[in-house]
Amino acid sequence: MPAPHVYKEATLATMQPEAGDYGLIPNAALVTDGGKIAWLGPMADLPKPYASVSSTNLAGRLITPALIDCHTHIVHGGNRALEFEMRLQGASYEEIARAGGGIVSTVTATRNTSDADLLKAALTRVDALIAEGVSTIEVKSGYGLDIETELKMLRTARQIATQRPVRVSTSFLGAHAVPKGANADTYIDDVCIPALKAAHAEGLVDMVDGFCEGIAFDVAQMTRVFDAAKALGLPIKLHAEQLSNIGGTQLAARYNALSADHVEYASEADAAALAKSNTVAVLLPGAFYTLHETQKPPVAAFRAHSVPMALATDWNPGSSPLGSLLLSMNMGCTLFGLTPAEALAGTTRHAAAALGLTDSGTLAAGKRADLAIWNVATPAELSYGIGINPLHTRIFAGQAT
Amino acid sequence: MPAPHVYKEATLATMQPEAGDYGLIPNAALVTDGGKIAWLGPMADLPKPYASVSSTNLAGRLITPALIDCHTHIVHGGNRALEFEMRLQGASYEEIARAGGGIVSTVTATRNTSDADLLKAALTRVDALIAEGVSTIEVKSGYGLDIETELKMLRTARQIATQRPVRVSTSFLGAHAVPKGANADTYIDDVCIPALKAAHAEGLVDMVDGFCEGIAFDVAQMTRVFDAAKALGLPIKLHAEQLSNIGGTQLAARYNALSADHVEYASEADAAALAKSNTVAVLLPGAFYTLHETQKPPVAAFRAHSVPMALATDWNPGSSPLGSLLLSMNMGCTLFGLTPAEALAGTTRHAAAALGLTDSGTLAAGKRADLAIWNVATPAELSYGIGINPLHTRIFAGQAT
Ligand SMILES: [Zn+2]
Ligand SMILES: [Zn+2]
Repeated sequence: MPAPHVYKEATLATMQPEAGDYGLIPNAALVTDGGKIAWLGPMADLPKPYASVSSTNLAGRLITPALIDCHTHIVHGGNRALEFEMRLQGASYEEIARAGGGIVSTVTATRNTSDADLLKAALTRVDALIAEGVSTIEVKSGYGLDIETELKMLRTARQIATQRPVRVSTSFLGAHAVPKGANADTYIDDVCIPALKAAHAEGLVDMVDGFCEGIAFDVAQMTRVFDAAKALGLPIKLHAEQLSNIGGTQLAARYNALSADHVEYASEADAAALAKSNTVAVLLPGAFYTLHETQKPPVAAFRAHSVPMALATDWNPGSSPLGSLLLSMNMGCTLFGLTPAEALAGTTRHAAAALGLTDSGTLAAGKRADLAIWNVATPAELSYGIGINPLHTRIFAGQAT
Repeated sequence: MPAPHVYKEATLATMQPEAGDYGLIPNAALVTDGGKIAWLGPMADLPKPYASVSSTNLAGRLITPALIDCHTHIVHGGNRALEFEMRLQGASYEEIARAGGGIVSTVTATRNTSDADLLKAALTRVDALIAEGVSTIEVKSGYGLDIETELKMLRTARQIATQRPVRVSTSFLGAHAVPKGANADTYIDDVCIPALKAAHAEGLVDMVDGFCEGIAFDVAQMTRVFDAAKALGLPIKLHAEQLSNIGGTQLAARYNALSADHVEYASEADAAALAKSNTVAVLLPGAFYTLHETQKPPVAAFRAHSVPMALATDWNPGSSPLGSLLLSMNMGCTLFGLTPAEALAGTTRHAAAALGLTDSGTLAAGKRADLAIWNVATPAELSYGIGINPLHTRIFAGQAT
């Protein structure tokens, strides 16, 4: 259990909801004790007992909550660089499919990759996120599309937290794509739901996710998966309204989903529904950018209805090979018009909410001492830089890592 | 002088012009000796004398020429994060200008920053580029707009190469902006050209650059600067056709410029002119992205006329706070439709040409041993990843750094 430690002469971006924007406290101190935040406030108010414990002078540096990447697919085999190249050389989607491209290639690679190699590749990605001060990472299954490989992916996700000082939240995403040649309904009944039950029995599932889209599963099919999740007592989230509006967001809201993700094609009514169910809208600008999407998520409607907005990498080998959560913040601002304060809330407080976590995402007494310390003068710099990482140090669960 | 060393079991992307695309050699070896490449080719052909010298087994990793960032403004004071934030909060350009924003704020900050702090900030940026295998960096002046500060910027640029194992090519960019309240012609005569002469006398200038645009300097004004450059025997380059077409590209071609940079608004005739003068088109997708530009550079015309295309960060605090040359490669592909092979040629061979360097940018016997070694299976991965750095190791001038 880490002993008390005082971080002095810092600027805090507490990200507390009632504090407005960043909840900035200049000339501040923050005390960690036993993996939690014990106290924070202006230096001048530092309680006497803490004046004599070990301390670090941060010389004005910024402390934010450690970042949270609330939507990733970082457990997967292979990559799709050659498909990326073929497309830029002018190949059609048909030609790419014939060459074995598309999600099928990732499914095949993930099935054929050993547990050890799957973990090794995932840890390389985790290390890149840790380097940006990311303490908590959501990881989805969904490239197995058979019971065995879905379980393998989730076991790998659980392994990550034993190898690195991060927390991993897992989402079962059996309903990611219809396997080649399969019937979607049969797949849901015979593979997806049995895989979910098996994974849950093994303690591998924190949340249940799906891809509700014309090219994947419809509302009726996702409803069956969500009913199975509900029966197991698992919270849900959904890839919804990414390419079209087919009712996924409303479905997610009806099930009090933790989040509805992508949501480029969500409507004002969808925003209202999310607000009512307190569901986070997770914006994924990496996929928007890679797919040359032009329909932006309805940020104005989300603001008007006070829908919490998160930002994540959606790190996946096809539509978003984006390995930087800081870059997703810049893209959230530049591509979607978020303010830097919204971007930072989107990778801290609202990202925690998208994972159902109440113990992190803000700086407050009693929360986990998951801190990112930055070489910046103002939190806007975190979103302003493009491909720049100004991290100074990380404190995860009260420990420098 | 480094002793001979053999890199074995590598894949080489030689980037030699006649080799097509990447000029790939699988199962290859590369020998460095005395800071240069002594030999490269298939492992099976490794000359006998090299079989016994010290070696590194690269286990199939990819070797490319070290990357070259041929357009940056990394020497500058301050940053513009608060301006970025104001804009996203809905402030107008007028309000930002009234708050002291825009290039004026960078000029003020650069004038007011000490030599030591200017160098320190630049080195942080250099270190980020080095971390991506960048061995050669172009650095411009242009935030001084007075003789003293233009010289200070170029001296700082020269200092970089004494503090880090990189090569720095300097461009005098006195004709970057008209100082507030000044007359453009008077500025050219009384400040810009005298500053150029003074900087050249001090050995600070490798190239002469300018910003030819409605909001900066016109063709007649740039002609006077270029004539001064010519009189000093200095090669030229030009920010041309970024926001409109006012003839900068044709001007650059008439002066056999090393490069014409940005060139979003260049025409087919401009492409033909560049081809004739063997001028490199330097594409800067970071500024395109940040400024929400929609006019793409005429890539098809450049291809049709065999205009060499380079890619660079344009790292600057206003229109392109982009600190990753790898990300500029991804943006070149995703935003401009370059192929990954064009993107890699754009940060190696053609970037060298944009700086007038003939000793680097490809892997060939006799060239500088500036190598980047990557944890990738195919060079397309370098452009495919977004905000991902797969660098394994760097060899600059034959030395691991
Ligand atoms: Zn996803
Ligand atoms: Zn520039």
